Amino acid sequence: MPTSSSQPSPWPYLSAGIPDELFEQFPGIPMTKRETRLLLLSQLRLELDTVLWDIGAGTGTIPVEVGRICTLGQIVAIERDEDVTNLIRTNCDHFGVANVEVVQGSAPECLAALKSIPSRVCLEGGRSVREILRQVWQYLIPGGRVVATATSLEHLYAISESFSELQAFNVEVVQSVINRLEMRGNNQVFTAVDPIFILSGDKQL
Amino acid sequence: MPTSSSQPSPWPYLSAGIPDELFEQFPGIPMTKRETRLLLLSQLRLELDTVLWDIGAGTGTIPVEVGRICTLGQIVAIERDEDVTNLIRTNCDHFGVANVEVVQGSAPECLAALKSIPSRVCLEGGRSVREILRQVWQYLIPGGRVVATATSLEHLYAISESFSELQAFNVEVVQSVINRLEMRGNNQVFTAVDPIFILSGDKQL
Amino acid sequence: MPTSSSQPSPWPYLSAGIPDELFEQFPGIPMTKRETRLLLLSQLRLELDTVLWDIGAGTGTIPVEVGRICTLGQIVAIERDEDVTNLIRTNCDHFGVANVEVVQGSAPECLAALKSIPSRVCLEGGRSVREILRQVWQYLIPGGRVVATATSLEHLYAISESFSELQAFNVEVVQSVINRLEMRGNNQVFTAVDPIFILSGDKQL
Amino acid sequence: MPTSSSQPSPWPYLSAGIPDELFEQFPGIPMTKRETRLLLLSQLRLELDTVLWDIGAGTGTIPVEVGRICTLGQIVAIERDEDVTNLIRTNCDHFGVANVEVVQGSAPECLAALKSIPSRVCLEGGRSVREILRQVWQYLIPGGRVVATATSLEHLYAISESFSELQAFNVEVVQSVINRLEMRGNNQVFTAVDPIFILSGDKQL
Repeated sequence: MPTSSSQPSPWPYLSAGIPDELFEQFPGIPMTKRETRLLLLSQLRLELDTVLWDIGAGTGTIPVEVGRICTLGQIVAIERDEDVTNLIRTNCDHFGVANVEVVQGSAPECLAALKSIPSRVCLEGGRSVREILRQVWQYLIPGGRVVATATSLEHLYAISESFSELQAFNVEVVQSVINRLEMRGNNQVFTAVDPIFILSGDKQL
Repeated sequence: MPTSSSQPSPWPYLSAGIPDELFEQFPGIPMTKRETRLLLLSQLRLELDTVLWDIGAGTGTIPVEVGRICTLGQIVAIERDEDVTNLIRTNCDHFGVANVEVVQGSAPECLAALKSIPSRVCLEGGRSVREILRQVWQYLIPGGRVVATATSLEHLYAISESFSELQAFNVEVVQSVINRLEMRGNNQVFTAVDPIFILSGDKQL
Repeated sequence: MPTSSSQPSPWPYLSAGIPDELFEQFPGIPMTKRETRLLLLSQLRLELDTVLWDIGAGTGTIPVEVGRICTLGQIVAIERDEDVTNLIRTNCDHFGVANVEVVQGSAPECLAALKSIPSRVCLEGGRSVREILRQVWQYLIPGGRVVATATSLEHLYAISESFSELQAFNVEVVQSVINRLEMRGNNQVFTAVDPIFILSGDKQL
Repeated sequence: MPTSSSQPSPWPYLSAGIPDELFEQFPGIPMTKRETRLLLLSQLRLELDTVLWDIGAGTGTIPVEVGRICTLGQIVAIERDEDVTNLIRTNCDHFGVANVEVVQGSAPECLAALKSIPSRVCLEGGRSVREILRQVWQYLIPGGRVVATATSLEHLYAISESFSELQAFNVEVVQSVINRLEMRGNNQVFTAVDPIFILSGDKQL
């Protein structure tokens, strides 16, 4: 994979699903947890030269993982906040991922200025999910694919209805309810990862 | 149901499953969540005159609910810590439940001093789960029933193996994985209640 | 509780949550599973004299459980199919529950002919959920409560949006994801109960 | 990736997590479901030249996915039954995976005859899990890793205790509880994938 530094990567494996604690984190900045990330990466149906827009990239875990897989691909990571864009860059450097462009901006307004044409879009947040999806659908190549996460009922509705209106096909919805066994003192206690819905749909060829 | 005060109860319904937020709570003191409580109460197979020992009673939610259902029954709530025993009493008063005796003590040592003979035992915690179960089995009436919760792999093992050794029958194991939709700002976000195992077994008649 | 026969009940306990296998079942007829039933009964906030309409009563587990709890109450169990109405009657008899009226009919059309005024409505199915909810809201007493289950995304939407339109308050959504340990040969294997959403809302006083 | 045929692969993507329905299946033969497979592949920490023993390979989904990722690696898929070994070969051919050796045999007895030295072991079944783990630990290279699945309480115990006895480190336990939205008639109904535990541990370097 493309590397921007000569240091050994903290995750020297081909497997996707980098442990959460290996990423730099910032209080209050959302991070796509390992188990959810695996489902997202699978649903994204990545190819060697995938062009991905990641809208609401947060900590940057998806750009890092996709950058490692799609070594001839390009990832555009979009985030509103300057601090967060810096965090994404830090994590890309940390894992030696060089094919990620970080864009500071607010979707959907900022999308018009992007120069690449996406074959995949990952939508991990944003206030106006319906409007973002409508615009993203225009930019997406025919046969391209959108994968979106929902943690609230409102977003679950908005994404599901938008896929219907946009006549997306191959629509899939998966809910991930992961329990991890974590050490608390001397005991391994079952703890829940908050459930998340993952919705995917294809644009007609 | 027996009442110790003339105030209206904050939960005037016959339904079990009092909402968590209606209980007095104390930081750091464990509370059996509503959804888990419902499973416990069902597994306890309560009768009008059930005599229940509740070991590790915590916030007192089980004594309150059982006290409301078994109006001719007796509940002994056992807790190590004085502050916690006071919390249990507060919650019993709060819901007008008068058939609960709160015992400050550490199981299994404190069990020998109890005067009642239990027909049901609820085991919600304790360091030496195996030893507690072994002793409880001696006190339990023939045909009586023990229901125990496990939040860790160690306790899940210990309880399951103890039931085998004690030749409990009708053993059931249920895992409760509840997700609630909670308001976060203007959104209803799915949040997970930490998963809990509920194990039940009967003593031979 | 009211009894219609002199036989001992197959569930002689006060606890709600009768094990599924104690009910008469009919292939293809939906049954509200024990763990889901417990959440429904809790959300229904039952009182001694509750008047409940149970729309889409299926196997009749809710009428049986509510009939046992609300001994001065009245339950109207509504089902389209004659065979299913007979199954409900069989289960009521089986558990000695005498305060259930079984009505063969299709909601919402059949509701106008009902003579009781409900204080609680349990909506467990039906093709036109939105229309049923709209009409139910007219019949419901002020301060009454509706609890509805959803197993599909469409129903989850329809119920949630209807509650908004009807200005229901105290709206709660819970998702139950229960795993049971069941014997398969000599092993206790974890099996999942299909997840179900439970939505509740109150009509303004 | 290595290909043994000139046909296009039914899954032309780099993403792991091939949809279940793309595999040839055989009634009664267990298959590791997509969402579980993703967790297994992540926990296996694969490298380009990983040597994997897959014990209890079933339908062959893990050999296929690992064969696609570790293009310089070797996978040994072990199964007792001749029909099942043929199914694994069919699926490898189907996805153009050529670096999988299928061995018909019963673990742990058959392990001694294997010529490769594994850097990773995936344990997906077997009657004598403890004995298999003990022997596997001898063959495993220092720093190697074992990932095992458990669907029963007995296996969960056996694997967890064996890891303790073998002084495995970096032990992780994850429980996957996945709900999928599937079409039933005109409705998208939530259906549960049976929960599975995934345990992983490393052998000391």
